[in-house]
Amino acid sequence: MGEAAVRTVEDPALRAAMLRALAASAEVHGTTSPNPPVACVVLDAAGEVAGVGATRPPGGPHAEVVALREAGARAGGGTAVVTLEPCSHHGRTPPCTDALIAAGVRRVVYGVADPSPPAAGGAEVLRAAGVEVLGGVAATEVARGPLRAWLHTARTGLPHVTWKFAATLDGRSAAADGTSQWISSPASRAEVHRLRRTVDAIVVGRGTVLADDPWLTVRGEGGAPLDRQPLRVVVGTGDLPAGARVRDGAAPTLHLRTRDPREVLAVLAERDMVDVLLEGGPRLAGAFLAAGCVHRVLGYLAPKLLGAGPAALADAGVATVTEALCLDLEEVTMSGPDVRISAVPVPRGGRTA
Amino acid sequence: MGEAAVRTVEDPALRAAMLRALAASAEVHGTTSPNPPVACVVLDAAGEVAGVGATRPPGGPHAEVVALREAGARAGGGTAVVTLEPCSHHGRTPPCTDALIAAGVRRVVYGVADPSPPAAGGAEVLRAAGVEVLGGVAATEVARGPLRAWLHTARTGLPHVTWKFAATLDGRSAAADGTSQWISSPASRAEVHRLRRTVDAIVVGRGTVLADDPWLTVRGEGGAPLDRQPLRVVVGTGDLPAGARVRDGAAPTLHLRTRDPREVLAVLAERDMVDVLLEGGPRLAGAFLAAGCVHRVLGYLAPKLLGAGPAALADAGVATVTEALCLDLEEVTMSGPDVRISAVPVPRGGRTA
Ligand SMILES: NC(=O)c1ccc[n+]([C@@H]2O[C@H](COP(=O)([O-])OP(=O)(O)OC[C@H]3O[C@@H](n4cnc5c(N)ncnc54)[C@H](OP(=O)(O)O)[C@@H]3O)[C@@H](O)[C@H]2O)c1
Ligand SMILES: NC(=O)c1ccc[n+]([C@@H]2O[C@H](COP(=O)([O-])OP(=O)(O)OC[C@H]3O[C@@H](n4cnc5c(N)ncnc54)[C@H](OP(=O)(O)O)[C@@H]3O)[C@@H](O)[C@H]2O)c1
Repeated sequence: MGEAAVRTVEDPALRAAMLRALAASAEVHGTTSPNPPVACVVLDAAGEVAGVGATRPPGGPHAEVVALREAGARAGGGTAVVTLEPCSHHGRTPPCTDALIAAGVRRVVYGVADPSPPAAGGAEVLRAAGVEVLGGVAATEVARGPLRAWLHTARTGLPHVTWKFAATLDGRSAAADGTSQWISSPASRAEVHRLRRTVDAIVVGRGTVLADDPWLTVRGEGGAPLDRQPLRVVVGTGDLPAGARVRDGAAPTLHLRTRDPREVLAVLAERDMVDVLLEGGPRLAGAFLAAGCVHRVLGYLAPKLLGAGPAALADAGVATVTEALCLDLEEVTMSGPDVRISAVPVPRGGRTA
Repeated sequence: MGEAAVRTVEDPALRAAMLRALAASAEVHGTTSPNPPVACVVLDAAGEVAGVGATRPPGGPHAEVVALREAGARAGGGTAVVTLEPCSHHGRTPPCTDALIAAGVRRVVYGVADPSPPAAGGAEVLRAAGVEVLGGVAATEVARGPLRAWLHTARTGLPHVTWKFAATLDGRSAAADGTSQWISSPASRAEVHRLRRTVDAIVVGRGTVLADDPWLTVRGEGGAPLDRQPLRVVVGTGDLPAGARVRDGAAPTLHLRTRDPREVLAVLAERDMVDVLLEGGPRLAGAFLAAGCVHRVLGYLAPKLLGAGPAALADAGVATVTEALCLDLEEVTMSGPDVRISAVPVPRGGRTA
């Protein structure tokens, strides 16, 4: 939104292959950081799917290499459909452009360009080697998909923050007596749990730890914590109770004794954190929003009314209605019985980080 | 929702004709009360549209008669598609069943059955006269359309109440300093203005009159009040300021010195009010919801965050989360940039009126 865009009609077959790659990238989302969760679909010369691959954990092969291996000789004269512009630099693995050229693909189609200087330029390298290159296929979907946070970090050097909240239709996150069980549906809670698996860090304010004593871990079907856990981050100048569950050792935990959201982002950037989930509470979320440190708002609105109780958001630095924090809605969908709203804060002078 | 329903596959041509009738009924919505805003599409023997009609203001002809007149001789052997089961009783006009039989239609198709005892039985009268009768076509859409309030009143003897509210995504209806201009978009405000034209009464609490001094009138394109105005109702035990705009004479106004929503509904029922729009504020809405006196919730959520300021709903009698007022979502749509949510309160023991 915001930008006027000239829309070209996309080849439906390429679009379909890109959406398939997008789905494949979702499966590795959360396992590749700090590398991007890319996926690649290789079509043979006849346009049939010959290989599908996604980025392996750090040190492992990139998506293109995985897909090309699966395609084998069928890649020759075919098309590689990749969510991100292939890299042309030597990192822990050799450049993907080399692999694509060596495999003899006729054409490379990508979703979004790589904004990071050392890797960028893959399209040029491919063209110089006589490969046809087409960028921007299903670009909106790809940019909002698993690559979203990585693209943000590549552009800004700072982590991408999603503020997630659950509330009733009248904006309450708990009832008058503080009870908040079952505000959102089992479907939404399961979705948030899946979301946690994809992020590098989960951030909450000290107030949420004191009030709810959450674990903030990611658990599997059986309830046991998974091997790979996001970093747990508690923000607040005061102490944490000795017995707080976030100190249980089931996952690494960081207590940041600050009230400055920008300082939080700087510390997380130093630790290579790309994708951050801000789970509240209302005051920390208000501070992050006021500081321009939220890049996506994800609200789960339950079809319930309470008429009393704490609000989902507090102290966002808004005194009068003309100062309201404006959002661009990206998507309104259902999550079980709840309305799920995904939106992007509209940057204002001095409010972006 | 709630009810398990066996869905039969509907004849697409009949469904299309019913949806056309539904659209025609929307055009007279608000001009027929206390009669129902019905519409009728007459198809000739070949299935072509031969006539379309909707209920004229009280004393005028019913929808079937208007449509049959337009169809003329083409009605013979054709099908009359009516949103409501045709009436079989003598009111201010002769029974529609007589007109349909006299016109020689072969078949009558209706959306919803007429629940009101004196008029009901139209289907039986038609069948006895050898006319084929089919009910329930596009029944869900028809029941939620312009006939909604009338059907409710026919069943319960009380008016149907829609609580409409506007709020930000975090449930605020104004900023910390009380300013609330432009919370909802021009598109939503225009839609609410169109909604006002369709209702018999607009209800607000005395607090809203004191705070906002609203006109609560329906104005045309040029800004002048329309001829037909809904009754303005202010609820509250205290006095209204002498200069309050609701006392300007542009429309009739009723000040009900009570705090009992059921008493409000009883008074409005006595005055033949069918369709009532409750426009707030938060405390009166809370009282209506707690008393089970809201039959539809219509929320316009602006893509904005405030983090402070009064909530859209207060004092709904909910102390703990298990007492939350539950809603069945009917429809989530966009109204300009706003998310528009239509929902029905789930009745609980003792909470329906
Ligand atoms: N609806 C939801 O999605 C949701 C999610 C999470 C929590 N909650 C609810 O939120 C309630 C807790 O509310 P809360 O506001 O106390 O939680 P909070 O926002 O998690 O914690 C507030 C604390 O965060 C620290 N903080 C860090 N930076 C801050 C800043 N710039 N401004 C203010 N505080 C800052 C402060 O700790 P120091 O005083 O130590 O500096 C402050 O006391 C709980 O009842 C919980 O259930 C709801
Ligand atoms: N977001 C929205 O869609 C929306 C819509 C309308 C208004 N508002 C805002 O709401 C604010 C006014 O809030 P409010 O709560 O004072 O407004 P309100 O609910 O309109 O009025 C409250 C008054 O209603 C009367 N009342 C009648 N029955 C009642 C009951 N059972 N319980 C409590 N009161 C009852 C009382 O008057 P007596 O004391 O005389 O008995 C009470 O003082 C304004 O700032 C206005 O802008 C927002």
